[in-house]
Amino acid sequence: MDAKDPKQSTPCSSPVGVHNPHLDALKDDILYHFNLGTGTHDLPAMFGDVKFVCVGGSPWRMKAFIEFIAAELRMEDPKAEYPNICAGTDRYAMYKIGPVLSISHGMGIPSIAIMLHELIKLLHHAHCTDVTIFRIGTSGGIGLEPGTVVLTKQSVDATFLPKFEQMILGKTVVRNTDLDQSLAQELLQCSKELNQFETVIGNTMCTLDFYEGQARLDGAFCSFSEKDKQDYLSKASEAGVCNIEMESSVFAAMCKLSGLRAAVVCVTLLDRLKGDQLISSHEVLHSYQQRPQLLVSSYIKKRLNSKTECC
Amino acid sequence: MDAKDPKQSTPCSSPVGVHNPHLDALKDDILYHFNLGTGTHDLPAMFGDVKFVCVGGSPWRMKAFIEFIAAELRMEDPKAEYPNICAGTDRYAMYKIGPVLSISHGMGIPSIAIMLHELIKLLHHAHCTDVTIFRIGTSGGIGLEPGTVVLTKQSVDATFLPKFEQMILGKTVVRNTDLDQSLAQELLQCSKELNQFETVIGNTMCTLDFYEGQARLDGAFCSFSEKDKQDYLSKASEAGVCNIEMESSVFAAMCKLSGLRAAVVCVTLLDRLKGDQLISSHEVLHSYQQRPQLLVSSYIKKRLNSKTECC
Repeated sequence: MDAKDPKQSTPCSSPVGVHNPHLDALKDDILYHFNLGTGTHDLPAMFGDVKFVCVGGSPWRMKAFIEFIAAELRMEDPKAEYPNICAGTDRYAMYKIGPVLSISHGMGIPSIAIMLHELIKLLHHAHCTDVTIFRIGTSGGIGLEPGTVVLTKQSVDATFLPKFEQMILGKTVVRNTDLDQSLAQELLQCSKELNQFETVIGNTMCTLDFYEGQARLDGAFCSFSEKDKQDYLSKASEAGVCNIEMESSVFAAMCKLSGLRAAVVCVTLLDRLKGDQLISSHEVLHSYQQRPQLLVSSYIKKRLNSKTECC
Repeated sequence: MDAKDPKQSTPCSSPVGVHNPHLDALKDDILYHFNLGTGTHDLPAMFGDVKFVCVGGSPWRMKAFIEFIAAELRMEDPKAEYPNICAGTDRYAMYKIGPVLSISHGMGIPSIAIMLHELIKLLHHAHCTDVTIFRIGTSGGIGLEPGTVVLTKQSVDATFLPKFEQMILGKTVVRNTDLDQSLAQELLQCSKELNQFETVIGNTMCTLDFYEGQARLDGAFCSFSEKDKQDYLSKASEAGVCNIEMESSVFAAMCKLSGLRAAVVCVTLLDRLKGDQLISSHEVLHSYQQRPQLLVSSYIKKRLNSKTECC
């Protein structure tokens, strides 16, 4: 429960905090959706050196990320395949190279929440310290040139409020969705040094639905007009919303609770004020999707090359 | 918009209803998460004969389902591979044999909702009629022997109310979550004829989270006691809840809106009154997971072998 455990870390290091007194009573902890567990795997040996975790919706993209960062960190073996650590299940895919872990989380708040519960327990069981975590993803932009990368300041709900509502025993518990501002600033600085694409810091709206919940006119159901849509997105823009996606609120809330430094780094694939469908070519969309991974890789490389300590 | 369109169907047949006046204005409709579209694929030729759709969380399980039903319907070609129709994306996997379509939907309400929007549009564009849809899945049982199959009567929320709340333009719209009672009864009758496992009809609680939202004591965070958990699950049981999963509410609501006959068929992997972790062996869990697909296959086979029409 305590954020500082002298048995597991040096005085300046920060462990990953679980907040569950019942875990100590478990003989083994089965991380079911990862197909891993404390009784079947030596988690400290497998994951104890992890310092950076990068998560994203698509398993293919998270495999591409580990290949990309392995090359960037010059840790790649041209003959090596990167095995999926969760190969025994198709719920999530997980890859590792040196201090970097890459995990897919599927689409939507429930899917990423299951993954985060098991990831936080995994990092705790492995006695990891000083972990930084990034969500890299895609989003719809509001008034931004497609291809712009948004670093999330706060994740807001469909009424533009910075909160995540967690149901516990049938009651609503409200959680804070602030992300680490210093990390966002460091990533913005990295982007300036890269000088390859536009990056902004702004609020991100997190919805439970891609169609009606994001004011799209092209779902199977739509009960509102083009004007209603434009009015809603304009209000979102006035409230500081730069982009819309489906995972940032629970990601921000859970990372904050567990003491992980966290950033949400999403590229905008289209400007929602101008349309709903993703009509750009496959090649253009693919190149946009590489921007968050390029930025995060650049940041990790810089951190590993600097000799500064955490405190 | 109209459920009866004489141009597309015989008087007794029922088309799949989209409720979106904006769709007609689209030149092409891109079903982005399926990597399909009206401009790039001949959807009536590819899908016009579909009468049964079976959806489930895991892509592996949905491939296994199509192989199983192909054998059951004696439509299999031992040399044939069943290609993934959505091979150009890793968001969902889709397989087809004759009148049966099998699609994965990932975990949680947002993930299945994206899939259902695009599936309903696909069936609409393909001019399909008289489609029956099943969700096959796994769940936690309440007071049931593990391995019991539950056919959902109503999907209820975390306060045990039969409703699904859809956010539209920042406002909550409440939708009905009743499932087709005659279909559930027909499936129950099928299960009696199979006589291989216990099947019941009951309410299913649908949550946005697997850990705190389902009163589990083994997540990264837990703020309640074993007694609090037992009290909550007992109240759920008193309200008629037989099992807990994460997709049934939006599935019921969207299928009802589009006029699809729909059933939720989930096996219970454990009794939540007795524990939270999935400690049964891989073999036992695997055999439980085959029960919903066995039951649905048996139903489809029976329907195809009977010569009765829909009206």
